[in-house]
Amino acid sequence: MSPTIQKRSEKAWASPGKLVYVGEQQKEAVEIAAFHYTETACHETALKTADECRALQREPGITWINIEGLHDTVLMEQIGIQFGLHPLIIEDILNTDQRPKLDDMGDYISVVLKMLDYDEDSGGIVTEQVSLILGDNFLISFQEGRQGDLFDPVRERIRSGKGKIRKMGPDYLAYALIDGIVDNYFAITEKISEKIEEIEEKLLSDPSNETIHAIHHLKLAILHLKKYIWPMREIINALAKGESPLIMESTLIYLRDVYDHIIHAIDTIETTRDMISGMLDIYLSSVSNRMNQVMKVLTVIATIFIPLTFIAGVYGMNFKYMPELDWPWGYPMVMGFMAVAAGVMLLLFKRKNWM
Amino acid sequence: MSPTIQKRSEKAWASPGKLVYVGEQQKEAVEIAAFHYTETACHETALKTADECRALQREPGITWINIEGLHDTVLMEQIGIQFGLHPLIIEDILNTDQRPKLDDMGDYISVVLKMLDYDEDSGGIVTEQVSLILGDNFLISFQEGRQGDLFDPVRERIRSGKGKIRKMGPDYLAYALIDGIVDNYFAITEKISEKIEEIEEKLLSDPSNETIHAIHHLKLAILHLKKYIWPMREIINALAKGESPLIMESTLIYLRDVYDHIIHAIDTIETTRDMISGMLDIYLSSVSNRMNQVMKVLTVIATIFIPLTFIAGVYGMNFKYMPELDWPWGYPMVMGFMAVAAGVMLLLFKRKNWM
Amino acid sequence: MSPTIQKRSEKAWASPGKLVYVGEQQKEAVEIAAFHYTETACHETALKTADECRALQREPGITWINIEGLHDTVLMEQIGIQFGLHPLIIEDILNTDQRPKLDDMGDYISVVLKMLDYDEDSGGIVTEQVSLILGDNFLISFQEGRQGDLFDPVRERIRSGKGKIRKMGPDYLAYALIDGIVDNYFAITEKISEKIEEIEEKLLSDPSNETIHAIHHLKLAILHLKKYIWPMREIINALAKGESPLIMESTLIYLRDVYDHIIHAIDTIETTRDMISGMLDIYLSSVSNRMNQVMKVLTVIATIFIPLTFIAGVYGMNFKYMPELDWPWGYPMVMGFMAVAAGVMLLLFKRKNWM
Amino acid sequence: MSPTIQKRSEKAWASPGKLVYVGEQQKEAVEIAAFHYTETACHETALKTADECRALQREPGITWINIEGLHDTVLMEQIGIQFGLHPLIIEDILNTDQRPKLDDMGDYISVVLKMLDYDEDSGGIVTEQVSLILGDNFLISFQEGRQGDLFDPVRERIRSGKGKIRKMGPDYLAYALIDGIVDNYFAITEKISEKIEEIEEKLLSDPSNETIHAIHHLKLAILHLKKYIWPMREIINALAKGESPLIMESTLIYLRDVYDHIIHAIDTIETTRDMISGMLDIYLSSVSNRMNQVMKVLTVIATIFIPLTFIAGVYGMNFKYMPELDWPWGYPMVMGFMAVAAGVMLLLFKRKNWM
Amino acid sequence: MSPTIQKRSEKAWASPGKLVYVGEQQKEAVEIAAFHYTETACHETALKTADECRALQREPGITWINIEGLHDTVLMEQIGIQFGLHPLIIEDILNTDQRPKLDDMGDYISVVLKMLDYDEDSGGIVTEQVSLILGDNFLISFQEGRQGDLFDPVRERIRSGKGKIRKMGPDYLAYALIDGIVDNYFAITEKISEKIEEIEEKLLSDPSNETIHAIHHLKLAILHLKKYIWPMREIINALAKGESPLIMESTLIYLRDVYDHIIHAIDTIETTRDMISGMLDIYLSSVSNRMNQVMKVLTVIATIFIPLTFIAGVYGMNFKYMPELDWPWGYPMVMGFMAVAAGVMLLLFKRKNWM
Repeated sequence: MSPTIQKRSEKAWASPGKLVYVGEQQKEAVEIAAFHYTETACHETALKTADECRALQREPGITWINIEGLHDTVLMEQIGIQFGLHPLIIEDILNTDQRPKLDDMGDYISVVLKMLDYDEDSGGIVTEQVSLILGDNFLISFQEGRQGDLFDPVRERIRSGKGKIRKMGPDYLAYALIDGIVDNYFAITEKISEKIEEIEEKLLSDPSNETIHAIHHLKLAILHLKKYIWPMREIINALAKGESPLIMESTLIYLRDVYDHIIHAIDTIETTRDMISGMLDIYLSSVSNRMNQVMKVLTVIATIFIPLTFIAGVYGMNFKYMPELDWPWGYPMVMGFMAVAAGVMLLLFKRKNWM
Repeated sequence: MSPTIQKRSEKAWASPGKLVYVGEQQKEAVEIAAFHYTETACHETALKTADECRALQREPGITWINIEGLHDTVLMEQIGIQFGLHPLIIEDILNTDQRPKLDDMGDYISVVLKMLDYDEDSGGIVTEQVSLILGDNFLISFQEGRQGDLFDPVRERIRSGKGKIRKMGPDYLAYALIDGIVDNYFAITEKISEKIEEIEEKLLSDPSNETIHAIHHLKLAILHLKKYIWPMREIINALAKGESPLIMESTLIYLRDVYDHIIHAIDTIETTRDMISGMLDIYLSSVSNRMNQVMKVLTVIATIFIPLTFIAGVYGMNFKYMPELDWPWGYPMVMGFMAVAAGVMLLLFKRKNWM
Repeated sequence: MSPTIQKRSEKAWASPGKLVYVGEQQKEAVEIAAFHYTETACHETALKTADECRALQREPGITWINIEGLHDTVLMEQIGIQFGLHPLIIEDILNTDQRPKLDDMGDYISVVLKMLDYDEDSGGIVTEQVSLILGDNFLISFQEGRQGDLFDPVRERIRSGKGKIRKMGPDYLAYALIDGIVDNYFAITEKISEKIEEIEEKLLSDPSNETIHAIHHLKLAILHLKKYIWPMREIINALAKGESPLIMESTLIYLRDVYDHIIHAIDTIETTRDMISGMLDIYLSSVSNRMNQVMKVLTVIATIFIPLTFIAGVYGMNFKYMPELDWPWGYPMVMGFMAVAAGVMLLLFKRKNWM
Repeated sequence: MSPTIQKRSEKAWASPGKLVYVGEQQKEAVEIAAFHYTETACHETALKTADECRALQREPGITWINIEGLHDTVLMEQIGIQFGLHPLIIEDILNTDQRPKLDDMGDYISVVLKMLDYDEDSGGIVTEQVSLILGDNFLISFQEGRQGDLFDPVRERIRSGKGKIRKMGPDYLAYALIDGIVDNYFAITEKISEKIEEIEEKLLSDPSNETIHAIHHLKLAILHLKKYIWPMREIINALAKGESPLIMESTLIYLRDVYDHIIHAIDTIETTRDMISGMLDIYLSSVSNRMNQVMKVLTVIATIFIPLTFIAGVYGMNFKYMPELDWPWGYPMVMGFMAVAAGVMLLLFKRKNWM
Repeated sequence: MSPTIQKRSEKAWASPGKLVYVGEQQKEAVEIAAFHYTETACHETALKTADECRALQREPGITWINIEGLHDTVLMEQIGIQFGLHPLIIEDILNTDQRPKLDDMGDYISVVLKMLDYDEDSGGIVTEQVSLILGDNFLISFQEGRQGDLFDPVRERIRSGKGKIRKMGPDYLAYALIDGIVDNYFAITEKISEKIEEIEEKLLSDPSNETIHAIHHLKLAILHLKKYIWPMREIINALAKGESPLIMESTLIYLRDVYDHIIHAIDTIETTRDMISGMLDIYLSSVSNRMNQVMKVLTVIATIFIPLTFIAGVYGMNFKYMPELDWPWGYPMVMGFMAVAAGVMLLLFKRKNWM
């Protein structure tokens, strides 16, 4: 039994709200990086405790707290208490074997997302869970820390003060993070498309048993992508409906844009899936075809030489009374007959298009 | 005709509400274990009759009556009468060949669930029906008793008084039981995932006729899982909508959490299903491939040696006038020619990539 | 052209409402059996004409008229006129090549159902159309009479006065009949399940061409089941919604129960369908496998003996100058070489796992 | 490029409302047959111009104008102007490469339908577009004229005055025409069912390459049927909802009846489709099976005789020192050994069930 | 990594609203062609800057600005500012790797469409993005410029003043452009249908490995068509609902007509898809069939001649004591026996229908 199964089994009958981090520890220490900004100013700090986070958020302006590393369950619980989060929310953040989900709790919105990557070596999908807690003047983001800190480009935009990001609320900041995660999906679908082209070329030139396994691995990758991206659609749709007062009207058009991107990604994945199943058909039919070719060669050779060998066998018999053996022209006649028979056979095979 | 079919056939035209236990008797005697608790106190008793159950429930506090073993139809009828349950509800509890279902009867809610297990030896899904009757201050749970008593962890939590379980109503208790049952599904999907990995390795190393049967059994297991888990989705969704006054607002978020788990389980099953059908494709294509290999060996051998044998046959003929036979270099020349012919053949096969 | 096609073609442009019985006549004479009952009393009569039916229905109490045999279109028309039924309703009752359907006409509800049976010999589904007309104080049921009278168990319950049947209205009586018909579907699915197990065993032990035809017939049976049972779902759902005043509130829970049964039957059929398509996969792969086996035997034999035969052929040539032929150890050396070559081949095949 | 493609390509950027008849001209001259009837009287006339049509419609009573042949675009435009039809409606009537559609324009309803036929020789579906314009006191029907006039049975009913047709409005007349067209679909599904039975028999007795093409043609026919009949469902459903004041309440039950027929036809087509795909599976598996048989024969023969031939070859070698050759019992012993070897082989094959 | 992937990856975390043209530059300079028309007058001009566009639009009458070439992001930004377009709208226009979409921004409607073409040589679908901005008195259309200017037929209609186009608003103009684009889809489906017929003929006469690749390419083309055309359905449906005041009531019927065309195109594509998958089945079964044929020839030849060769081999043995060899009739008897054996074999094969 793998350790993950054991963890899950132990969780099965545990009291709900009991905090267990299901994934592997990725970092030695949890890192808390805080941004505090208004339209005019912005300063960054590294925090240590939940109390410090809470204190920062109480000051006027927008606070973004990014937590990297999820294994410190005590800290997580403290943050939950400080920001008044429901225990189930914290449980969801820690349970990285979690489906993407959205919980609108009135005071705050919790979003659990999946940052995905396609590992070209193993051909598998690598996931990292990213959770966001959106309040009226703050955003807390949680990362597992597997792929390093992914939000640097957004940080740059805040620091530089360019664009709308400092002029708008934490909902726009949440949008910026989600948009980055979703746009990343296209990089994956494009990597997969390149892989497909590669395999298709091999299918044409030299289909082997490895090709079928490469196709199978692609299929699995697509299955996993689908599993993670499909739920994103509902989540972003729910956000874009604008039913929560935490999301301002001016942000909705941006969320709708992300929604269109998700739909586009889903479309692409569906098309890719159909392409892969088409490749399987080609593979099977070209294997059949090659078997056919092999069989034809065998049949042509056997059909020509087996009868001839029989004739040679006949005149190899040791009967005393075989008049042909004594004819002076016996040998050339037999040889000539054999040549004619072989020629007729070859002609027949040509007509049947077997050669 | 199997005995189950006979039972069902007899039931077909029977008066509705007539009580028949469809399953096999699992225990010698029905066991009734009752919990009676308030936020501060908790005591357990073993009861015998329906009257005792009813008496206990009338006292202030929350009553949880757990009934293990369903074969005593008289007792079941008495419980139905004492708690004012509709005869059809009791019928559903006894009919273990039942789809998971929910009946909101106003005064009480009846839920029929399936506790599932994956039997790794037979590769099949084992089911046990668990039914819950949720009233305003009581919960009655019914188990078949096949897998022993499953609710011990919940009992522990009540006894210890830790967590929220004693502070909340019978609806939270019902949630706790349902949550345990649903979380258990993940253990099954993970066992199946392990099985799939095992089979995939065999597919790569040595696909045999047993592999295909293992795949087929997995497929059947997935089919049965699906059959039992899909209806759970509707049931828990209906509970989580909070339309019944028997379910308090504070419990709803927990039920929504279970709902997310069910959806996650369903997603996983769907993915697993697609993986299994992919394995079938691999199996078939690797069988084809191996046949191809066998055919190539046969063809190479036959194509090289059949013509050579023919030549040997020609010079084995007994014609009197075969001048080559008398040439001193006849034998080495023929042997040389054969060697050249075989070499050319081998070269052709190398090019065709058949060797 | 079959007679049924001719009948349908004639009907195509016929005036709507023109009465034609599409099926075959099953009985010599139509039998009309009437029940008239109140909570306290119950008497049965055999009627002859539509007028008698109408007279009986006018008396206080509940009237159940059961008509067996549909070929007497004049009688049918009379009944339509006496009970004020729309001509299309009567047409539907007579058209046994009819999809199950429900028509709520305000004053009365018309339900057309299918009584099904699985003929284990032919492997096909046998259907009998059962139609019900539910009024405020009467129920008329129509049977084709193919399978004999099916409603005896319900009659017994009316006669004995046990259960709720005499206490409730004609809607409950309609429910009792529908429930019997639907419960019968499970008998079919169970017979099919047994058949599947039988075929699966054959698949494992000795798959033959008959197996594939058995699978195909099962598939057809499932297709027909589906065709008849799917529409039942909508019909019973519509009844269970309780929008008609003809159906009393207390009957609704019973109808919802039947609805659950239908859903259960549909689930089972879906699962069965997937199982059957899985059996097909197994069949095809085991045929491939056996072909593989056959090919391997051929290849092993041919690959060992064809080269040896060639060597024997070489030393059977009649060249004058073949020094080996004169060596005293020539024969044993050649035989030894052959033995070694064969041994090496066998070893190679063992390694390739072909033997 | 086929002429139809050219016509369509020209249409692509043409001004909407420009009238082009896409189909082939079927008749030399357009025939306009008018019926004018009330409950008591009915007279028929043959008209020539759109003005005459309009004049007839203005008189009290119900007017049915049937136009056979669509190539005269000037006449069509005139009719559009006289009856106040939108240019797009006329365009749709002329565009016979049109999906069945319904337009409720307030003053009138336009319905475009497909009369279908199954051509048993070519195995294809033949279509003829029938369009209806339903006004408050008139109905105009348009036919391509391919299959002759199809509405004669309805005309007979009007002439004879039997049934309800003269007592009701033009909506009932429209229903009568639609009902005839829809009922005709069953004739097609039944012809296809007969074809399927025919092919199934062949599948059992002697599956050949023609069988697979027959299956493929059936599949295509079903695809085309589906394409034309599916949209009919929405159309008739929209009509049967009774949202237009042009359709009287008493006609609605008849339209609902047609709707049920369409659903039935769709069900049948779906079932047929599944049956056909089942036949394909059988075909493929029986081809595999026969290949298996052929391979077994080859293997049995080769496995028995190749080793024997080798032994004969050995004793045909010309070595000087082969002691066996001089044994008096050498020949019978070798022959005996061969017989035993062949016998053992045969026994093995019997056991493996290859013979 | 291809340049497109790089572009997308750079975009992934970029600030939303940052303008990047994803496609390839098609033209040297952007061309802006403006139409300004009322019911009575119409004049055309070529513009250079966004200011000129805006100035023209401010004059009374309807302005249509067509922009060909999207690489000049500065100009695009200026146009966005002049006409008050949201930055995301401009971003969508430039992102040609975009799903067809509709944004109703209140003041204006933005529609992104795909002009498609089927490249018969490569067998692929060529796309060009066309975007429309519909305001209350203006329409701006954006083309990539890949396929030359496509809107000439519409320009002709404006210049000539025929038809309704000058009498109606910019919404009708937008409709005219969309209608042209959609009608073009039928040209594609018809080209594909011709291709299918071509391939089907080949399937019947001479199925080769190229056939399977042609089928695969068709399948991919259909997949891409589907990807682009499916979203069009929602877009045009949304337009045809008439919820925007920018679209006049009289235009709605035209939009509904386009909607019907899209549905028709989708139906056709679905049917085509099913036809292609049917062709694959035929291909596979005819490959199997031909393999069967080849095997039969091999088996017949081998089964006849291998035993005969064995017999010849027997009488080629050099045993001293083989009495048959000395019989005067030995040779003819053996030859006769061989002829009989071969004849019997041939008869058997005839019966088995293998010849």
